[in-house]
Amino acid sequence: VPVRSGSTQEEVRRHNLQAVLHHVHLQGPTSRADLAAATGLNRSTIRALTADLARHGIVRERPPPAGGRSRAGRPSLVVAPEAHRFGVLAVDVTVDKLVVAWVGLGGQIIDRREHETTRRAQPVAAVVELLGEMADDLLGAEAPWEACIGVGASVCGVVQREDGLVRFAPNLGWVDAPFGELLRARLGRPATVLVGNDADLGALAEHTRGAATGSDHVLYISGEVGVGGGIIADGHQLHGRGGYAGEFGHVVVNPTGRRCRCGSRGCWETEIGEDAVLVAAARPPGGGWPAVLEVIAAARAGERAAAAGLRRVGRRLGAGVAGLVNAFNPEVVVFGRVLADVFTATEATVRERISTLALTAPREQVRLVPAQLGEDSALLGAAESAFAPFLADPLRTTGWPTAPFVRERLAPPRDDLGLQSSVSG
Amino acid sequence: VPVRSGSTQEEVRRHNLQAVLHHVHLQGPTSRADLAAATGLNRSTIRALTADLARHGIVRERPPPAGGRSRAGRPSLVVAPEAHRFGVLAVDVTVDKLVVAWVGLGGQIIDRREHETTRRAQPVAAVVELLGEMADDLLGAEAPWEACIGVGASVCGVVQREDGLVRFAPNLGWVDAPFGELLRARLGRPATVLVGNDADLGALAEHTRGAATGSDHVLYISGEVGVGGGIIADGHQLHGRGGYAGEFGHVVVNPTGRRCRCGSRGCWETEIGEDAVLVAAARPPGGGWPAVLEVIAAARAGERAAAAGLRRVGRRLGAGVAGLVNAFNPEVVVFGRVLADVFTATEATVRERISTLALTAPREQVRLVPAQLGEDSALLGAAESAFAPFLADPLRTTGWPTAPFVRERLAPPRDDLGLQSSVSG
Repeated sequence: VPVRSGSTQEEVRRHNLQAVLHHVHLQGPTSRADLAAATGLNRSTIRALTADLARHGIVRERPPPAGGRSRAGRPSLVVAPEAHRFGVLAVDVTVDKLVVAWVGLGGQIIDRREHETTRRAQPVAAVVELLGEMADDLLGAEAPWEACIGVGASVCGVVQREDGLVRFAPNLGWVDAPFGELLRARLGRPATVLVGNDADLGALAEHTRGAATGSDHVLYISGEVGVGGGIIADGHQLHGRGGYAGEFGHVVVNPTGRRCRCGSRGCWETEIGEDAVLVAAARPPGGGWPAVLEVIAAARAGERAAAAGLRRVGRRLGAGVAGLVNAFNPEVVVFGRVLADVFTATEATVRERISTLALTAPREQVRLVPAQLGEDSALLGAAESAFAPFLADPLRTTGWPTAPFVRERLAPPRDDLGLQSSVSG
Repeated sequence: VPVRSGSTQEEVRRHNLQAVLHHVHLQGPTSRADLAAATGLNRSTIRALTADLARHGIVRERPPPAGGRSRAGRPSLVVAPEAHRFGVLAVDVTVDKLVVAWVGLGGQIIDRREHETTRRAQPVAAVVELLGEMADDLLGAEAPWEACIGVGASVCGVVQREDGLVRFAPNLGWVDAPFGELLRARLGRPATVLVGNDADLGALAEHTRGAATGSDHVLYISGEVGVGGGIIADGHQLHGRGGYAGEFGHVVVNPTGRRCRCGSRGCWETEIGEDAVLVAAARPPGGGWPAVLEVIAAARAGERAAAAGLRRVGRRLGAGVAGLVNAFNPEVVVFGRVLADVFTATEATVRERISTLALTAPREQVRLVPAQLGEDSALLGAAESAFAPFLADPLRTTGWPTAPFVRERLAPPRDDLGLQSSVSG
């Protein structure tokens, strides 16, 4: 794509604002001196950029804590994200519960509501109504809607990226459920509602703030009843044509295996999902994550059926990961939700399978780790997806559809934007 | 990454040169008017850019053929790549033969040498010596070394991207063979030698000039004795951490299947590679692509064993592709080398398996096609990989290590580069 001349100063400024805000969003309060070191920009440029962000209420500058002086002896102001003024609504729809959280700029969960679901299959409209009530309650209590930059939602299903249509969520009983549209309507504000697959969002969160920061080639494998995957390739999320990439749970790994809810047979999720663990350990299916933890505890306590069942599942987990290592040559494989516990309990078996079944070259390069964000991976990923457009262009003066307050009250007129000073470095 | 101010005009110019040369390289001779339409740049900018490229001998401008006038009645000069002045050496090492070709700017094969190998396993040094002799012969006959922009080589094995070390090529009998280093030494010039996996390079070529142009999400599956894959995600090649991504042939699809040369069991290549087709059709292994074509012909002629064998392979091919569709959500799956023929002969079976085993959402979005570049996919991909750095920055005045002729004879002094005029649009 050719670049035209003309708007390049504006582009430079946007890039630099992005770099500064991104750093503060991910790392938290940072001194101007450290921002200069991290971005490679000089201190006068940093000063102009943070002043701009502060004038718009996006960050706040404050003196360093006592003793926090720069080498030259002059105090370097600390730049902190305005977590209570700018935030996103994050939603997580899992088989077992619904979560709605207010996540402030900086990525911390400020407040949350949870609702345990009693049945596994519920109509999409009922779920959306519940989420709406939880959001009303949460936002009434804590956060001003006016500062809501956007809404991010995670669903344990196959999600059409462009509009949040849930194409297939067997464990919720949804087929072509217009979740994104209904949620947007129920929230009743001009909010941008971004809906994603739980494993994709878990991958995003673990890559941004969890077990895979700093790695450009990441696979995240999330397990509950179903098994899904998220892919980071060359530092960016791999979505595929329509947003459906990463359905590792429905790759057939055993042609003579068990029937899967997707209509196929021998899918990986029939071999390593929660029910597969329970059945392998001679227990009834349906007990969810707590029942799997009980199996792991029983195996540790010496119960033979539990130990043998876990070993079998560990072998299947390792075999599947070996295939993914050959296909993707990842730097890190992160095991999420219940698979974090299963992996930890079967690590030696998993590693043995991988060393037998994966090619030497990619095997040498991969690290295997449990998720760091626990059951909040997908929720935090949903929040990050909602923050992304704002972080990319924080001072855009029109078009934050959900932030009329920000636009009208905080944005100064255009000729006050400090365009010249911000590119002086 | 923050952008600094200062060099932006230069960056704009480089981007625009890139866009123009890229178009001419891919589409061949193009009128200035069509270049303006394709790049969105105005005609005076295009004129300045093509004049720059012509002054450096990279393109040539000529009057349009009789009758070829623009709407306004003024003739629009046609810009053509200087295919005989700038080129790359492309190398393809397969199990059955060695190919060395001279590929001109514009991507056409101008001349080639082939050598059929008599044995399947040969020492890397012997192969490199043969390739060196073929290159001497070819370049002595046709192309001046001085105009060689770089060397690209394809190998049917697991290749370490950074230095061309072939980690594992079971069908050549190579383990950790320093192919890139030896080839560089044998060619005896300061050439940049880029070595890649054959399926990765096949994917690049089919995406650039073949069956998958215009698609941003592509899987290329290449079969001969072994089976490999190349991945295009969001328009870019997915290499993974070390360049090893795409080894679909070594994903285990059948835990009770046959032993694989990689040491594992039930790898996909043991189910759909050349020998798998031959064995399924009750023939001895080892006959290669010609023997597979004979099976296909026999099945068409009504031979039961051949037809049943092909159907079985088609089912396994479809099952594996279904898994890849679920994992990658590609827009196009391209079948390369012998798999192009196997796919064409078993298409109905392959599609039936995919419609049973792939999830609806990604299945609806995928097209399945045979490769368009035939057995030259990998060779042409090797050429494109060697062209890439030049296309990205064609007027770089230092640092084309292989083009002293270009640098010394064609590059004008720096103040003659037309910096101002090229950004006037």
